Amino acid sequence: MGMDDKVYRHLENLVGSGFVTRKKEDLVCYSYDAAPGNAFLPDAVVFPKSETQVSEIMRLALKKRIPVIPRGSGSGMTGGAVPVQGGVVLAFSRMNHILDIDLDNFTATVEPGVIVSHLHKAVEDLGLFYPPDPASSDVCTIGGNVGECAGGPRAVKYGVTRDYVLGLRAVLPCGDVISTGVSTAKGVAGYDLTRLIVGSEGTLAVVTGITLRLLPRPACVATLAVCFDDMEKAARTVSGIMRQAVIPRCVEYLDEASLFLVKDRLQFALPKQAKAMLILELDGDEITVKAQTEQIRQFCTQSFALDIRVAKDPGQAAALWEARKALSPVLYKIANQKINEDIVVPISKIPDMVACIKSIQAESGLTIVSFGHAGDGNIHCNIMYDKTDASQAKQAKKAVDRLFAATLELGGTITGEHGVGLTKMAYLSWEIGRVEQDIMKKIKAVFDPFRILNPGKIFPDS
Amino acid sequence: MGMDDKVYRHLENLVGSGFVTRKKEDLVCYSYDAAPGNAFLPDAVVFPKSETQVSEIMRLALKKRIPVIPRGSGSGMTGGAVPVQGGVVLAFSRMNHILDIDLDNFTATVEPGVIVSHLHKAVEDLGLFYPPDPASSDVCTIGGNVGECAGGPRAVKYGVTRDYVLGLRAVLPCGDVISTGVSTAKGVAGYDLTRLIVGSEGTLAVVTGITLRLLPRPACVATLAVCFDDMEKAARTVSGIMRQAVIPRCVEYLDEASLFLVKDRLQFALPKQAKAMLILELDGDEITVKAQTEQIRQFCTQSFALDIRVAKDPGQAAALWEARKALSPVLYKIANQKINEDIVVPISKIPDMVACIKSIQAESGLTIVSFGHAGDGNIHCNIMYDKTDASQAKQAKKAVDRLFAATLELGGTITGEHGVGLTKMAYLSWEIGRVEQDIMKKIKAVFDPFRILNPGKIFPDS
Repeated sequence: MGMDDKVYRHLENLVGSGFVTRKKEDLVCYSYDAAPGNAFLPDAVVFPKSETQVSEIMRLALKKRIPVIPRGSGSGMTGGAVPVQGGVVLAFSRMNHILDIDLDNFTATVEPGVIVSHLHKAVEDLGLFYPPDPASSDVCTIGGNVGECAGGPRAVKYGVTRDYVLGLRAVLPCGDVISTGVSTAKGVAGYDLTRLIVGSEGTLAVVTGITLRLLPRPACVATLAVCFDDMEKAARTVSGIMRQAVIPRCVEYLDEASLFLVKDRLQFALPKQAKAMLILELDGDEITVKAQTEQIRQFCTQSFALDIRVAKDPGQAAALWEARKALSPVLYKIANQKINEDIVVPISKIPDMVACIKSIQAESGLTIVSFGHAGDGNIHCNIMYDKTDASQAKQAKKAVDRLFAATLELGGTITGEHGVGLTKMAYLSWEIGRVEQDIMKKIKAVFDPFRILNPGKIFPDS
Repeated sequence: MGMDDKVYRHLENLVGSGFVTRKKEDLVCYSYDAAPGNAFLPDAVVFPKSETQVSEIMRLALKKRIPVIPRGSGSGMTGGAVPVQGGVVLAFSRMNHILDIDLDNFTATVEPGVIVSHLHKAVEDLGLFYPPDPASSDVCTIGGNVGECAGGPRAVKYGVTRDYVLGLRAVLPCGDVISTGVSTAKGVAGYDLTRLIVGSEGTLAVVTGITLRLLPRPACVATLAVCFDDMEKAARTVSGIMRQAVIPRCVEYLDEASLFLVKDRLQFALPKQAKAMLILELDGDEITVKAQTEQIRQFCTQSFALDIRVAKDPGQAAALWEARKALSPVLYKIANQKINEDIVVPISKIPDMVACIKSIQAESGLTIVSFGHAGDGNIHCNIMYDKTDASQAKQAKKAVDRLFAATLELGGTITGEHGVGLTKMAYLSWEIGRVEQDIMKKIKAVFDPFRILNPGKIFPDS
């Protein structure tokens, strides 16, 4: 349809003419996210500066029935920020202020556009700690993290975004501003709108302010890289570690294909027989970390590890994490298209899942690279293929079907942290029943009766 | 209205004639909970054995438009389980089985009628740990804990019930059974119905099954009792402790009136000048707990503690906790009526709140006993009065008004763990705005369009 001039002028009046655009070259930049192959042009991109502006934009959009798509940095993995039905992208790059860090009460109040790694640094400089750390933390925003309920490696000990959001400010599709939750450690007055909005993928309300719970910064961190000659040995070691009374803050794993991709970025030579690696990280006070490191080292030795390396300084640890975090983008070395699924299975089922992925790989003839948050049973499976080859694309789709079927069969879920967005919409009914979906859709209608907020996401008929 | 015979016979057919009653003497037992002065007779009490029975009861109740009130042990503090509009009380005492404890995946699957302390023992015997521990844990049920999002002393380190519920099975008012959440560590498919139902006080759906996340049992626990000659010194010490990089699993406090009530139950003589006590508990592996105990001991000494005692064995620690947990019932020694409010303020505001409670006490002429989870800023304020004295009752009501006004003024909430129920309904609008309440009421209508589930709770016009 395109955007009519009158509406565009109105948007300019609301935010100032420098902060709205409909130039094609700008629109293209906001047409996609990190889920390849799902580009849709918006009609305009608006850069609001305040909650009031967001509210006014929503009132206008409702009146004109224009879709509005809130967007952080567009690093989402399921097309959640893509303007499927056109409309206005609300880009939060200007609402990127840390408004308050309360040292006495261990809270931070932030705008949604704050980059997660900036938040990490700001609170750590003050001796505090915000645990959730998605691999994209250098680019992704806290607003996007709230929208998706982002996790990351440290979730195994510290939980996910949901566990750190105490309260929200948000704008409803009608333009009304709501305030949910508390700024205290506890609070149970009324229904939990806070956690309903967290993870709702920008489909219920536009988050404009976030109050986060913080922890004291752990005094000491130890990072270990442990190699195995067999993926299933690594998987069994993960289950075993979790049965110790030690909970590492991270239990990541990389399979053989992942190791091949990142081996040049490691600061040490991998043993020749290495087919899997675990990255383990422990934190706490110095004495505890020392004792637990030794305990884990012994356990890994008993579990037939080929090689156990403890990072000698923060630089070595950082290099290891940089290699791990580079994995997702570096996958394109293998093929020009990837389907990245973030399945979760009970941790005891990781060996079964690993075997299953092997068999899907053999059957499809495609390379499947898997790595991820093994301590949570959260495996990032990347099915790589040539997008110009229709038969490979078909095989990839079949591989996803098999992967999800196996995941659910093992008692798992189709998404641990990426959300449903656009790319998993067709699979939602595999996991969530009709009655439950019906409730969810009616809740959507409570917040957004005219379906203007991020339409065409999560539910196939939205 | 009373219950017509046909409906009663139908209920008998559904659950068996021994498992439904309408004898006056039985009904009286299910007419009240732990919030004094709020008794309402139900028309019948039903003891279902299975989810299927619950579903059939709900279908019947919907057809006949009969209120249904789910009930655990009736230890709730806000009249949440009281049948305000009569109807059928669903008592879960027969659905009290621990169905599964999964040692590999750190989960438990339980029926709602399981007593929380039974769950604690069962998982601890297997080397696992379920942290939430409301003071009523020897009587209260896990279903009630889910309904209220119960907390308890250990919430300061481990969080509340919400943080341990991975998934639910529940029966909707129409009788349909839903399954929410996951049985894995993570999961974000669709809206978070799990946390919407947790803390919804039995007004959205009847919970029939709960999957809980467990932790490894901490190897070692240290319990300290620390006395001060001044309540505000104790309050400042709490803020100070939380700023250390040590998070005790419990930071409880007792004021002078509380100490007077429990001093005979302590296994040591209180210093004469003692006007406040902190109970601090640390857990973890042995080395850590030892080091942290010393750190806390030093900090308390610097904070002018009169007396610091470390429990020498589990028996001494248990005696201390028994004294603390006896506080709520023993209050009736002071007066025949109490109003127990579980306000929360930011921890840095505890000294202000303590001063404010003192001034409310002076103004009202009533005894106010306060104790609670200071590490969360969650203070249980008990306003004691003679219920036969109308002027005292009026003063008590005025004291509650002032208490809530001051709490909200300090950035707090009117309820940290007891819920709104019946007794805080008139205050809900003091904390939650019109727009937010409107959304909540529409969500209630999505689940329960005919308002048959626990009517007359949370929202003044429900």
